[in-house]
Amino acid sequence: MIAVKGNTTPINEGKIIENIRALGIDMIDEAQSGHPGIVLGAAPILYALYAHHLRIDPKNPQYFNRDRFVMSAGHGSALLYATLAMAGFDLEIEDLKAFRKLGSRTPGHPEVHVTPGVEASTGPLGQGVANAVGMAIASKYQQAVFNKGKNNLIDYNVYCLVGDGDLMEGINYEALSLAGTLNLDNLILIYDSNQICLDGKTEKTFKENVQDRMASFGFATFDVSNSEDIASLDKAIEDAKEAKQPAFIEVHTTIGKFSSLEGTNKVHGNPLSKEEITSLKEKLHVRDIPFTISSEAIEDFQYQITNRCGNLVDEWEKKKNTLSEEAKEELAFLENPDKSIKLSKFDYAPPTDGIESLRDTSSKVLSSICEKYTFILNGSADLFASCKNYFKEKEDFSRNNYLGRNIWFGVREHAMAAIANGLALCGIRPIVSTYLAFSDYLKPALRMTALMDLPVIYIFTHDSISVGKDGPTHQAVEQLVSLRATPNIDVYRPGDANEIIGSYKAIFESNHPACMVLGRNSVPVLEGTTTAGVEKGAYIVKAEERQLDGIIIATGEELSLALNVIESLFRKGYDFRLVSFPCIEKYLTLKEEEQEELLPVGVKKFVIEKSSSYSWHQFVYDQKYLFTIDQFGASGSPSDLDLKYQFTQDIIEEKIEKLLH
Amino acid sequence: MIAVKGNTTPINEGKIIENIRALGIDMIDEAQSGHPGIVLGAAPILYALYAHHLRIDPKNPQYFNRDRFVMSAGHGSALLYATLAMAGFDLEIEDLKAFRKLGSRTPGHPEVHVTPGVEASTGPLGQGVANAVGMAIASKYQQAVFNKGKNNLIDYNVYCLVGDGDLMEGINYEALSLAGTLNLDNLILIYDSNQICLDGKTEKTFKENVQDRMASFGFATFDVSNSEDIASLDKAIEDAKEAKQPAFIEVHTTIGKFSSLEGTNKVHGNPLSKEEITSLKEKLHVRDIPFTISSEAIEDFQYQITNRCGNLVDEWEKKKNTLSEEAKEELAFLENPDKSIKLSKFDYAPPTDGIESLRDTSSKVLSSICEKYTFILNGSADLFASCKNYFKEKEDFSRNNYLGRNIWFGVREHAMAAIANGLALCGIRPIVSTYLAFSDYLKPALRMTALMDLPVIYIFTHDSISVGKDGPTHQAVEQLVSLRATPNIDVYRPGDANEIIGSYKAIFESNHPACMVLGRNSVPVLEGTTTAGVEKGAYIVKAEERQLDGIIIATGEELSLALNVIESLFRKGYDFRLVSFPCIEKYLTLKEEEQEELLPVGVKKFVIEKSSSYSWHQFVYDQKYLFTIDQFGASGSPSDLDLKYQFTQDIIEEKIEKLLH
Repeated sequence: MIAVKGNTTPINEGKIIENIRALGIDMIDEAQSGHPGIVLGAAPILYALYAHHLRIDPKNPQYFNRDRFVMSAGHGSALLYATLAMAGFDLEIEDLKAFRKLGSRTPGHPEVHVTPGVEASTGPLGQGVANAVGMAIASKYQQAVFNKGKNNLIDYNVYCLVGDGDLMEGINYEALSLAGTLNLDNLILIYDSNQICLDGKTEKTFKENVQDRMASFGFATFDVSNSEDIASLDKAIEDAKEAKQPAFIEVHTTIGKFSSLEGTNKVHGNPLSKEEITSLKEKLHVRDIPFTISSEAIEDFQYQITNRCGNLVDEWEKKKNTLSEEAKEELAFLENPDKSIKLSKFDYAPPTDGIESLRDTSSKVLSSICEKYTFILNGSADLFASCKNYFKEKEDFSRNNYLGRNIWFGVREHAMAAIANGLALCGIRPIVSTYLAFSDYLKPALRMTALMDLPVIYIFTHDSISVGKDGPTHQAVEQLVSLRATPNIDVYRPGDANEIIGSYKAIFESNHPACMVLGRNSVPVLEGTTTAGVEKGAYIVKAEERQLDGIIIATGEELSLALNVIESLFRKGYDFRLVSFPCIEKYLTLKEEEQEELLPVGVKKFVIEKSSSYSWHQFVYDQKYLFTIDQFGASGSPSDLDLKYQFTQDIIEEKIEKLLH
Repeated sequence: MIAVKGNTTPINEGKIIENIRALGIDMIDEAQSGHPGIVLGAAPILYALYAHHLRIDPKNPQYFNRDRFVMSAGHGSALLYATLAMAGFDLEIEDLKAFRKLGSRTPGHPEVHVTPGVEASTGPLGQGVANAVGMAIASKYQQAVFNKGKNNLIDYNVYCLVGDGDLMEGINYEALSLAGTLNLDNLILIYDSNQICLDGKTEKTFKENVQDRMASFGFATFDVSNSEDIASLDKAIEDAKEAKQPAFIEVHTTIGKFSSLEGTNKVHGNPLSKEEITSLKEKLHVRDIPFTISSEAIEDFQYQITNRCGNLVDEWEKKKNTLSEEAKEELAFLENPDKSIKLSKFDYAPPTDGIESLRDTSSKVLSSICEKYTFILNGSADLFASCKNYFKEKEDFSRNNYLGRNIWFGVREHAMAAIANGLALCGIRPIVSTYLAFSDYLKPALRMTALMDLPVIYIFTHDSISVGKDGPTHQAVEQLVSLRATPNIDVYRPGDANEIIGSYKAIFESNHPACMVLGRNSVPVLEGTTTAGVEKGAYIVKAEERQLDGIIIATGEELSLALNVIESLFRKGYDFRLVSFPCIEKYLTLKEEEQEELLPVGVKKFVIEKSSSYSWHQFVYDQKYLFTIDQFGASGSPSDLDLKYQFTQDIIEEKIEKLLH
């Protein structure tokens, strides 16, 4: 592809690329912080993508059917911002000058919702790859839903730029192995292959044959030996688009290209010196005045994008108009960033004997919700059978059926969570599941869910030491507080069927990240629990009858234990209040008076939760009032463990009695 | 290899294998819990390994130069215990009957230090693979240290059994890609390839060509089409031992072999019915009486091991006797499970201006320690340059130099931690490093460090929002409390050079897991800090002078901020005590009186730590007294962030003054 303007004037591609490079370097220099290596090395890749391939409209960065580009190597933020600004996205020179400054639209690593054109927050390596896989799944599913006959309403592709670091992180393998299994031919991975990582040459750490690896995953593989050769780059990307498999393009680049430190790790993460910049700009043939961009370069860059993509949005609107009313509504949900779902009624049939495992209740409730909403996709890291979030009425998402709604992630917790982030970034409301103990495996991606404020629902079952006989590796202890301490994610631990309904109601009605933490065992539906109570995070399940001798706080499976304790204490003459506490985060948003009303100062408070004490110190006067666990579990029957870890009714009762005096 | 006894009597291998199968099934039946699928499917593999390959002595399970076998698919515990018992390890039938019972020597998943012959605690999938890689590295390093001339004192190989789940987890790729890079030809991975995972067929989740993948990593690959064919298995293992690369053997097995559910996920994780067991035992030609083992099978199994390995320990002792005194001492350290190192003196030169980044201090102190101890190996997940734990005086561990002591893990945090566990399991004291924000990536393996009680040292730098301009993805918030809430690991956050020395002293003198959490920025060496104070976890850095108006608790970089606040408050007439709190875990081991002396009841206490409040509620009366962070950080300069998050001296001072009245 030879770039020309109006079919006559040749476009000076080199000039555009050199201006991107210079601009990125200026930003890093101004911030005195950033990563010049990738700016200089990978600029041609970003140029080629934006000029010749991405179907985007810089003036309508949220146009739904746009191709997605994920910069997994998030430390290349300066390169991305420089490219976006020059491509015509809404970024001014002042924004670029504010690179890495507090409150700017150009933060240290790319942040979605902050910078137009940034599709995902990246930085923690490898995750962008999985985000891209999630986006590719979303596209496939949406195609299956919408594209009837010849109406290719949805056909966006997903591009992802990765560095050596991305390709070393475990999550990238997980995600790409799954992408191959699902044959996501709308996914194009571009590898900025420069053989250098932060500490030095990758030959010390990464000798695998990446091309062979990707082929073993089922990817079509391509190699571009010289990143400066735009025609070869274009050819490879075109071939990748045509491929009937997901595609992997290795582009051989030189880190810090044109600087005197090119090809070394010294240029990875430190600003260049002033002298270096002067000599670099000379080589780049750009003026040595910071933030001076050739207007011809801008014009030529934007011309190519407009020429190729100018009609995209109009055509999209036309296609939308041909949709059925039902399809229009579906699409409106997808396009609306607010994914909150008001749930008025639940088709939940309580068990006849009133006893059910929380997982089973969850299963019933979820199925009834998901029946009605097309864009809830649901998956598990090989634990559908245990976490019970499989949609029995729905098909599986597979290479042969992109209309399926159950995603089999395999034993790949981390990729699952980051893929869920990708799904959510493309309008889906994802649900994913594993055991609570294994939430550790996906925590880095869950953190990104919270940071990007995506409405992903995590279901974590087998939530304490009471998981059966699998032993301490499968018994969560510190995981609950780790999740609760993570900013911007609501952690629900309901105690019975009513609270599960209340929790799902709260979760679906909010547009934010949430965890649903569930026990493994059967518990009764309790008198006094309500769906409405959950909304406040904490509420009174059983009020004191005459005077308030104390308050027991409990969550999850321990709620019924607490009720038994209270009833028994009552028979002994003690009058306790039972406060269920399904969601600390919600409680903390209550007004001080409301909090005080529930948990009055001066009243002794006790907490029963088979989990780390760190969650609960804030609610009690002293460590002694906590019936929690700060050691590892053990292999054994739940009843033996309750004795060992002192969670029998008798033991707790006795301790409380002593503490009352 | 045809198994015979005394070179004449043929050995009935089938009988041994069927007895192992039956025994494993009996255990699961007795426990009414466990995983029959792998017991029936992989029994021939374990038989072949123990009978014909592993150089072990069941009577001396800790014999140092033994081959290591790691059962990464830890849910195969019943198979492992049945094999170990029959092979002659110290396990009685009563032990097997107590499978999965509280306090037994046969817990739900294998636990090192609990069962003789179990080399690593496994269960969380994928980690065993990385443990094995760590053991293979340990062997290579120890070979390089000890094997002078023809004295092959150390030559143990490492075998690892993996299932589909192991090979899907990201950590396995990380570890094996590194194993290929380092060309660990003493590592043999055996893949129990049954195409079934918990939820169903792996074709839904895992279509990658595993053989090609492993070849792309630099492994020699082998295929055994029928797991029941012991001769083929033996041949593949022999070839693998001969290979000049790490080896991968795919063994095609049938999950739940010989049961009516064979080849399905139904037999993965649920006990078989009584009828099923009866019909199974008929097929296996074993008696249908639980825990009845053919004595011929036991005899024949143990005969083969004794015949092959009977002299191993004697020969080892002979070789040891030929060692120099120095080498003997080195070896004694390796063989001693207690790795505590008494540090009397530090070659630490404080900076002339008294100001230094905690990372730099750490670097100096570490180097001086490691100089003297051969079996401290040190690595980083591509952050040597930032975490500053590189041993400049030492070489790098590489495929060309197994004597190197700096391990370049690449951007593979999770494998790094699990490899460190493998190193520690083979007598090494490992140090590994990354940013605190990325401790999330390795948490599942750090949890296993804690659970196995291994003396691994984690160095986490860039420990708060004050990390420069990289933004929230690189800024730790909830990580500290997540680590502190993890049982059995000490988390140190020292505040200056004295406390760093004190922390390393405490860490090296203990034989337990520890984290060293360090800031990025320069701080002064403070008046009043001591190395000895650290030992108690918390101590007084500045005492009140006349009366105790309040106590400020601070850690890490915030210690100097707290001191400034206190000094300024003093000038205003308030008399505060400064308590440094480098290690909460240590403090919690103090006697109540000691705790009370440091933090008297009734005195207002304030905490300054740029991290989640969840760590500190236990020490203050109310949330208001905490100067902590419960939201994500932001990209910006440290000083701008201090203002935004209210960590300037003025702001804190003002708030404290208000709270005093």
